[in-house]
Amino acid sequence: MNKTNNKPIAKAAIVGGGVIGAGWIARLLFNAIDVAVYDPDPEAERKIKAVLDNAERAYTQLTSAPRRAMGNLSLKNSLNDAIQGAQLIVESVPEQLDIKQAVYAEIEQSAPDDAIITSSTSGIMPSDLQAKMRAPQRLLVAHPFNPVYLLPMVELVGGKHTSDAAIEQTEAICQYLGMKPLRVKKEIDAFIADRLLESVWREALWLVKDGVATTQDIDDAIRFGFGLRWAQMGLFETYRIAGGEAGMSHFLAQFGPTLSWPWTHLMDVPELTDELVERISSQSDEQSGAYSIRELEGIRDINLVSIMQALQQNEWGAGLSLADYEQQLYTDASAGISEAEIDTSQAIETVRRRVPGEWTDYNGHMNESRYLQCYSDASDAMMRLIGVSSEYIANTGSYFTVETHIQNIDEVTAGENIYVHSQILALSGKKLHLMHCLYHEDGHLLSTGEHMLIHVSLKTRSASEPSAQVLATAQAIADQHAKLSKPKGAGRFVGQARS
Amino acid sequence: MNKTNNKPIAKAAIVGGGVIGAGWIARLLFNAIDVAVYDPDPEAERKIKAVLDNAERAYTQLTSAPRRAMGNLSLKNSLNDAIQGAQLIVESVPEQLDIKQAVYAEIEQSAPDDAIITSSTSGIMPSDLQAKMRAPQRLLVAHPFNPVYLLPMVELVGGKHTSDAAIEQTEAICQYLGMKPLRVKKEIDAFIADRLLESVWREALWLVKDGVATTQDIDDAIRFGFGLRWAQMGLFETYRIAGGEAGMSHFLAQFGPTLSWPWTHLMDVPELTDELVERISSQSDEQSGAYSIRELEGIRDINLVSIMQALQQNEWGAGLSLADYEQQLYTDASAGISEAEIDTSQAIETVRRRVPGEWTDYNGHMNESRYLQCYSDASDAMMRLIGVSSEYIANTGSYFTVETHIQNIDEVTAGENIYVHSQILALSGKKLHLMHCLYHEDGHLLSTGEHMLIHVSLKTRSASEPSAQVLATAQAIADQHAKLSKPKGAGRFVGQARS
Repeated sequence: MNKTNNKPIAKAAIVGGGVIGAGWIARLLFNAIDVAVYDPDPEAERKIKAVLDNAERAYTQLTSAPRRAMGNLSLKNSLNDAIQGAQLIVESVPEQLDIKQAVYAEIEQSAPDDAIITSSTSGIMPSDLQAKMRAPQRLLVAHPFNPVYLLPMVELVGGKHTSDAAIEQTEAICQYLGMKPLRVKKEIDAFIADRLLESVWREALWLVKDGVATTQDIDDAIRFGFGLRWAQMGLFETYRIAGGEAGMSHFLAQFGPTLSWPWTHLMDVPELTDELVERISSQSDEQSGAYSIRELEGIRDINLVSIMQALQQNEWGAGLSLADYEQQLYTDASAGISEAEIDTSQAIETVRRRVPGEWTDYNGHMNESRYLQCYSDASDAMMRLIGVSSEYIANTGSYFTVETHIQNIDEVTAGENIYVHSQILALSGKKLHLMHCLYHEDGHLLSTGEHMLIHVSLKTRSASEPSAQVLATAQAIADQHAKLSKPKGAGRFVGQARS
Repeated sequence: MNKTNNKPIAKAAIVGGGVIGAGWIARLLFNAIDVAVYDPDPEAERKIKAVLDNAERAYTQLTSAPRRAMGNLSLKNSLNDAIQGAQLIVESVPEQLDIKQAVYAEIEQSAPDDAIITSSTSGIMPSDLQAKMRAPQRLLVAHPFNPVYLLPMVELVGGKHTSDAAIEQTEAICQYLGMKPLRVKKEIDAFIADRLLESVWREALWLVKDGVATTQDIDDAIRFGFGLRWAQMGLFETYRIAGGEAGMSHFLAQFGPTLSWPWTHLMDVPELTDELVERISSQSDEQSGAYSIRELEGIRDINLVSIMQALQQNEWGAGLSLADYEQQLYTDASAGISEAEIDTSQAIETVRRRVPGEWTDYNGHMNESRYLQCYSDASDAMMRLIGVSSEYIANTGSYFTVETHIQNIDEVTAGENIYVHSQILALSGKKLHLMHCLYHEDGHLLSTGEHMLIHVSLKTRSASEPSAQVLATAQAIADQHAKLSKPKGAGRFVGQARS
């Protein structure tokens, strides 16, 4: 197996640990990168910890692929301490040019010239940011979206003096982090996404100010309507379809005239008077006040995870970013296997995860099909362990399950942690007889799954011999597992009297 | 069981069968409402058929609940023919006030005064639409979103003369159709959603015109970033969280100042010159031209279905609309059961559906866990059949599966249709022994599932006696099924030699 360590950097520094800075911290830490943080806020540690807790919960559910090792987090008392040895320095301080420029000046006093500096600014042009720098070529904007640890998009914008190398390195780092970098071709205030967001925001403020709609009305108009469309196709692709069979040009002909209609207030900008702020805040309290901010974050995160997973199954949009990321995780894990870190003299831990909310049913517990999903994932992990890689599947074959027996011994509910221990019961030519035991994290048995798998050629879709190497690897494990006792229930048929 | 027939209308007329009109047709037909259509376009029938095909595919995957009967579709040669007997008349003709007013004048010549007339206009005010009507009280705007058969949002806007009764009746119809009606409080051009969309559209046109971004860049900035957020929370709820723990007021204080920054082009409106139209069309071709419009519609629809289903599992946003709709379908179906339409002397069809793309795995076929999902759905259908309703579950108990045996006999791939026949093998007190056979639509056997279920009290979470009525209903079926032969494989254990 190809052992790769594609980690592009070992250490990053984060200057400013607010919502965006803490989101970067989570994404970096969860991808095996050490992070040093400087934030003068005395509450910074507590706030960062809260974001990391959210991110931890989201990542537990995001993918069943083996996660990367956790980087080390350290909070420093000075900017100078934080940036020592950092190959990437992420600035996430307030949106004021003079504050940001002062931060860069301090960074440049001690950071090596080859450390990349990115700004998380939502709108200030990188040429302005880098205007007073000694080595401006290594500064660019890397504008992420909240929650940074989940949303793939990051706009990369270079200024007049930014080097191509700095942009390319940042692009590689973002790809390693599972993000979708978008290189913005021309520098403008607010780049691309925030231009669009700001236009909606201004229009929405008018709708609230004029009493046309409440914050709830506006949010509903979005999330029951075009927001669903935009999670998977953007503005233009959606409209291309809306034109019917004639496509984009028909759409433009049909809706072009409305451009001259008074369908927007945007020739003007609403003033955020105390009265308007009060109206928005109280409508927002009425709409969302039943949940704390922390609870809303949790709801948002699990929704985003579910949406991205749904799109992953459809091989589309943000689901492709998740698929790429998952592929990286599997590659890392396969690379690790050759080091024989797994003790094959015992039943092997093949799954460890949290039960997501969407796995439960009207009986208030994990649905029976999700037990088999755990076993399917566990069988996949066993396959990888004996050398059934994507390359092997493409060229030689795979294992198909032909028979399954499940005992449901105890219930488990959303949010609980579970793991699977897997054991080879027998191996003979094309046949592989597996048994999985599903446990609650407290160690009590929830269920067993017994499975007969047959090696199959994906070209002929019929039974075939596994490669000698796969067979040998599996046999070595089977020999060790033959010394273990069989889990209770192996060989049972449905309804058999219990002994 | 409570037999309800909550169908609010029996017949609707659609005037104009374009993308939006055809979307309305699909939503109405699939919910047992007869539809008559008038559209002078000679291609209308073919285009409507294409939309109905898309909608059919989407609805096959949308819910496993039993679908409503299909309404009857008729295409008429005159508006007058189409509106005869219609209780709802939906106008979806081009966005020109004089054309729409002429349509209403013709409608009023023969439609009864109590027929509701809705306009699908994206932006014209209902007071203007109804200005020349004889009975203007029954006209309102019901503005849906493409694809109408999937997206729940519909903005209801009354004009000066619209009666509350007309709005309330339309609201009830939309709820029956599984939609999320939003009553717009004040009449303005473009209502709520299209005000927001128009502001984004104008800004996006500038970005393309100025060469800052391509249509692909803009779409990516949306669908890998804020579009994912907006599928589940809107603008205000998202920003409430973005303010961190301090919430909405902190957010407003933090980002308020950007309102005075030059972050939008919107003081001005771009002109749709031939050059700009050409640029957008060719960029759009480059971005999406690998797929036909028809293919893009299919991709969009399955993505929307998957996203709504994901949100349904999380009990949030548009997922709640789907859950409400599904509940209506189950209620309809339960009501139907008392009429004993199901032949219980044979194995019972409990599932009929298409295999969605997201059910397949790296081996290119339906993942093993989805076989059990079919059986879980089939067991649920059997539960409903013997009287285990939501009310029964809340008050008395439910059945939990304790043991399962699955044979995987043949593969099945995405897009193929499958069905399940279910049979009671044995019944004794708390124990219910079921067997499901999963077939391909061509009739060949794909798999079997054998299951032991135990009746459980959801209060004590331990075994309990079913109600006498449930037991009697189940026993009557069991007695009939005892005469059938046992499916092959019943009683097998994993690895047992085949006979």
